[in-house]
Amino acid sequence: MATGSSGSRPKRRSRRPSVEVLRVGHRPGRDPRLTTHLALAARVFGAERMHLHPPDPELADRIGRVVARWGGHFEVVPADDWKKVVRTFDGAVVHLTMYGESLTRVLSRLARYRRILLVVGGAKVPPDLYRLSTFNVAVGHQPHSEVAAVAVTLERLRGLPRPGRFAGARRTIVPQARGKKVLEREHGA
Amino acid sequence: MATGSSGSRPKRRSRRPSVEVLRVGHRPGRDPRLTTHLALAARVFGAERMHLHPPDPELADRIGRVVARWGGHFEVVPADDWKKVVRTFDGAVVHLTMYGESLTRVLSRLARYRRILLVVGGAKVPPDLYRLSTFNVAVGHQPHSEVAAVAVTLERLRGLPRPGRFAGARRTIVPQARGKKVLEREHGA
Repeated sequence: MATGSSGSRPKRRSRRPSVEVLRVGHRPGRDPRLTTHLALAARVFGAERMHLHPPDPELADRIGRVVARWGGHFEVVPADDWKKVVRTFDGAVVHLTMYGESLTRVLSRLARYRRILLVVGGAKVPPDLYRLSTFNVAVGHQPHSEVAAVAVTLERLRGLPRPGRFAGARRTIVPQARGKKVLEREHGA
Repeated sequence: MATGSSGSRPKRRSRRPSVEVLRVGHRPGRDPRLTTHLALAARVFGAERMHLHPPDPELADRIGRVVARWGGHFEVVPADDWKKVVRTFDGAVVHLTMYGESLTRVLSRLARYRRILLVVGGAKVPPDLYRLSTFNVAVGHQPHSEVAAVAVTLERLRGLPRPGRFAGARRTIVPQARGKKVLEREHGA
């Protein structure tokens, strides 16, 4: 990632920011599918990893198997202490909440940052999160889906995914107007 | 919606298209939260209704209560026969599938349509859907979330939600940099 510039807050964005996601208040018994969707959406739109609080090794393994097959470097990492992830993050912490400022208004301010952490809470968001975040941002001030909010924010920050395989993919889709075409790569030495 | 022009395929898009969503293969026992997220995302990004196959009256009621409180005209309507919804739709039928053409490439062709039906399948998509759709479109050729795909496509078609209350809302959020501010409107006569 050497781009000849130092520091995490250049005046102008010279490239797409690197983005990580933090999911706070996951309920392993109840949320597996929603959090799986969150992780898959984060991956496809180019996030580097999802910190998961509380940790859920089974879910992390499931996403790891997707990555092994479809490529890329996305990972789900355990976050026993979500505040530590927020406090030590070297960039903008963007808490996605229906109560925050409009994404439209915040986007230009986000353009200064090289690194962005998108934080989404569960049903009960810890009040501290509003204070610890650099920005509290709403993608629509309405009851909503955190999967949708993360996907749309990532798309606005990094653009639509480009066609083509992720690095190291064993399986790749060839876009089709009708039907399905998938290339499988043999396991090599 | 009188705009002085007739027909559903004007040469240039003069305004944001009206969008509906069709969810095929919902599993009432297993999917309630995911399909709820799908409906909420569709609503916040300005879809008019979600056709739900098979019907799920409980879910439709739950979304109805959100609309009663937060305003707008979004509704979940039962679709016993999903093919009929697709066949009778007066506009472009856009099947969102990881196997389709890139959204980036299809967007300019979609700009001709006044009315768009976004179709998302469940785990098993009926093969007929590929054939019956006007477009098969991928928001990233990767394992994905239908919630994310619908949200991002809607955002690309209609833009980010604007702040402010939906028509008839009893509850409205006032955007805040920190914390929460909600206005409750009294029940009037």
